[in-house]
Amino acid sequence: MTKSNLPLDADRLWDDVMALAEITDPTRPYTRRSFTALFLEGRALLARRFSEAGLTTRLDAAGNLIGRIEGRNPALGVIAIGSHSDTVPSGGRFDGIAGVATGLEIVRALRDSGIRLDHTLEVIDFLAEEPSEYGLSCVGSRGMTGSLDDKMLDLTEPGGEALREALRRVGGDPTRLGKARRDDIRAFLELHIEQGVVLESCSLDVGIVTSIVGIRRIELVFQGEADHAGTTPMALRHDALVAAAGTVSSVRRAAEQLAAEGPSYFVATVGVLTVDPSASNIVPGRCRLIVDIRTTDPDLTRRFVEILDRESVAHSLAAQVTRTSFATLSDGPPVACDENLRSKLRQGANELGLKQMDLPSGAGHDAAFMSRIAPSAMVFVPCRAGKSHAPEEWADRDALAAGAAVIYQAVKDLDQSLTRNVQQGAA
Amino acid sequence: MTKSNLPLDADRLWDDVMALAEITDPTRPYTRRSFTALFLEGRALLARRFSEAGLTTRLDAAGNLIGRIEGRNPALGVIAIGSHSDTVPSGGRFDGIAGVATGLEIVRALRDSGIRLDHTLEVIDFLAEEPSEYGLSCVGSRGMTGSLDDKMLDLTEPGGEALREALRRVGGDPTRLGKARRDDIRAFLELHIEQGVVLESCSLDVGIVTSIVGIRRIELVFQGEADHAGTTPMALRHDALVAAAGTVSSVRRAAEQLAAEGPSYFVATVGVLTVDPSASNIVPGRCRLIVDIRTTDPDLTRRFVEILDRESVAHSLAAQVTRTSFATLSDGPPVACDENLRSKLRQGANELGLKQMDLPSGAGHDAAFMSRIAPSAMVFVPCRAGKSHAPEEWADRDALAAGAAVIYQAVKDLDQSLTRNVQQGAA
Repeated sequence: MTKSNLPLDADRLWDDVMALAEITDPTRPYTRRSFTALFLEGRALLARRFSEAGLTTRLDAAGNLIGRIEGRNPALGVIAIGSHSDTVPSGGRFDGIAGVATGLEIVRALRDSGIRLDHTLEVIDFLAEEPSEYGLSCVGSRGMTGSLDDKMLDLTEPGGEALREALRRVGGDPTRLGKARRDDIRAFLELHIEQGVVLESCSLDVGIVTSIVGIRRIELVFQGEADHAGTTPMALRHDALVAAAGTVSSVRRAAEQLAAEGPSYFVATVGVLTVDPSASNIVPGRCRLIVDIRTTDPDLTRRFVEILDRESVAHSLAAQVTRTSFATLSDGPPVACDENLRSKLRQGANELGLKQMDLPSGAGHDAAFMSRIAPSAMVFVPCRAGKSHAPEEWADRDALAAGAAVIYQAVKDLDQSLTRNVQQGAA
Repeated sequence: MTKSNLPLDADRLWDDVMALAEITDPTRPYTRRSFTALFLEGRALLARRFSEAGLTTRLDAAGNLIGRIEGRNPALGVIAIGSHSDTVPSGGRFDGIAGVATGLEIVRALRDSGIRLDHTLEVIDFLAEEPSEYGLSCVGSRGMTGSLDDKMLDLTEPGGEALREALRRVGGDPTRLGKARRDDIRAFLELHIEQGVVLESCSLDVGIVTSIVGIRRIELVFQGEADHAGTTPMALRHDALVAAAGTVSSVRRAAEQLAAEGPSYFVATVGVLTVDPSASNIVPGRCRLIVDIRTTDPDLTRRFVEILDRESVAHSLAAQVTRTSFATLSDGPPVACDENLRSKLRQGANELGLKQMDLPSGAGHDAAFMSRIAPSAMVFVPCRAGKSHAPEEWADRDALAAGAAVIYQAVKDLDQSLTRNVQQGAA
């Protein structure tokens, strides 16, 4: 496969991504946080390019920017392509925006080829996919799928503004969220950088996502005694960090075992561990840690949490401390990608001569929410060294275009096959 | 032993301690940080009480407050009793001040009994024993023993003031530190709360300190990769916290083994462990920890550091991270208390019918520096639940008086025995 074989314009796609990258907080590229002036500036650029591509552009009540081109048979419903244009602080140029630009380039490529779809096609920039200062991720895709409730809208950022107000400020309407809820989408497709090293290390062009992991987060707190590190003999200590350290080792060991079992994907991480009072001459009196558990198989989470529960209690007893918290902070189920859409994506990759593999998504995406209201699937493209959420995040121009071309092929195929299914269903 | 049997006034001693406790930052009792206005207010109270007890009061060039009463034979030199009146933030009422008040009460008790010593007697409030904002502990006792150098005087607090300036501000003279250096002290005695649970748990009245631990602090840094916690399979991780957690467990295991060997005292603690970037969805890329190692036997430190070195490298290899630092931050040798002084203290406790034991000090004290220029020894009194450096720090009135009485007895004995030794030496 070379760039010239692709049914779309790799340079034009690349230019969209790079043009958005220019719109960043200059002191910490690449930062375009949701709800900020920079975010709105990025969206203004997107809206211009949507219009130039022939899309009719609007904001829905959930703050999603939607470009739309009517199909020849609007009754068939909508094929949607999208992702998000907001970033984490000091993030990268590709996470999110690559998926929005893919939708935009597909619209242009169809137009250039003189193709008009039977289905209506939408390109969606979902609002605030990344966790924002309001403490919530996937605001727009939650809104579009009826998953954004009043409690979430009441969340406030440190300055005191509620998400409800912020949503209104960027053009949404929190009082009419029902209008954003969709039942007319027949297929949702999202391209995203892998954010991992699997495709790169296997020298593959694209990954067809089998499912998006479920994420459970558990908080553990160990309470001991903040004694003097010089005068407290080893046998008389109640060292919370000793229990926490044992738990970190248990998490690692159990996760390695469950991951090695296969075929399901399993990872678990202690990314947060705090020590109080955190002085070199004081025995740690309190430790808090958060365990992040991700898998495509909920039964593995169940088994892991049993091990974590049992071993963390054992570590606390051995260290003569008390485990005062073992709390589930959040728990989202895994989401399987639609099998029909996956087969179209696989077929598209085959037609283009691309090296592909099936792989799970270890990260959450808007597609996980969209699967609640429509068949959804994802394409991953390789990113250098798996780096993401960092300025060095990088995907090659041709790799990005190859991934977009897979979705282009699938959209053309789905436009026909979904029609046939509807016609068959109506027969 | 009851209060009425003691050769000094438990209530008067108690009143000194409680009067100092009144001089505290009201928002976070008990806080009287060195170099602050509150600290100087505390010293003004001490100086008044020194004078009322018949002591001649002065500040030396190292900022130590010294009360002095001439002996009948000044050529014999000085017996000194002291500790410090500064506190840690949100500290207690006894740490330090109990030792200064002991010296003061002994002066009054001798006067009440009509006893005039042959030796000159000094009561010393050492400047800034606790680590201050200038990053140095034991400023006054370092100064009195020729251990306060220019590099230390150049240390600055966050506001930019150098220790040199701060010393001048509280009445010292950094240009004439040589004048603070003493060679006339024949014995130094310090009473302190134990800051541990040994005396309390053994129901003992006093501890005679055998030696003051040496403290070595080692910083370890593990550098891994801050990868996405969802998309990075277990086998491809470079998790710095996994290496750090293994090291915490190694520290604990090795310290328990060395402590159990006996008879030397050994403790080791990881009190500081920081995780970067510290997000629940990011694999820890960097961990820093500080190991605090304390023992009365330097050979145990040597053996421990060998184990720590070897095992931390093994943990870093297993976690596929790099140990980028294994640095000695500080290293002070253990200090044995003077055997002759210890025997006098033991004898004093026996005369008073007090239950005593020999025990090491796991904490550093001014006596460790004073031992560089004079025979030095310490008496510990029990403190409730071992709590120290905290508002709940507590020693009973009679326990405190009992410890002070042991020093009183020893001072009377030493006044005679040290004289005899000098006379014998002169014969």
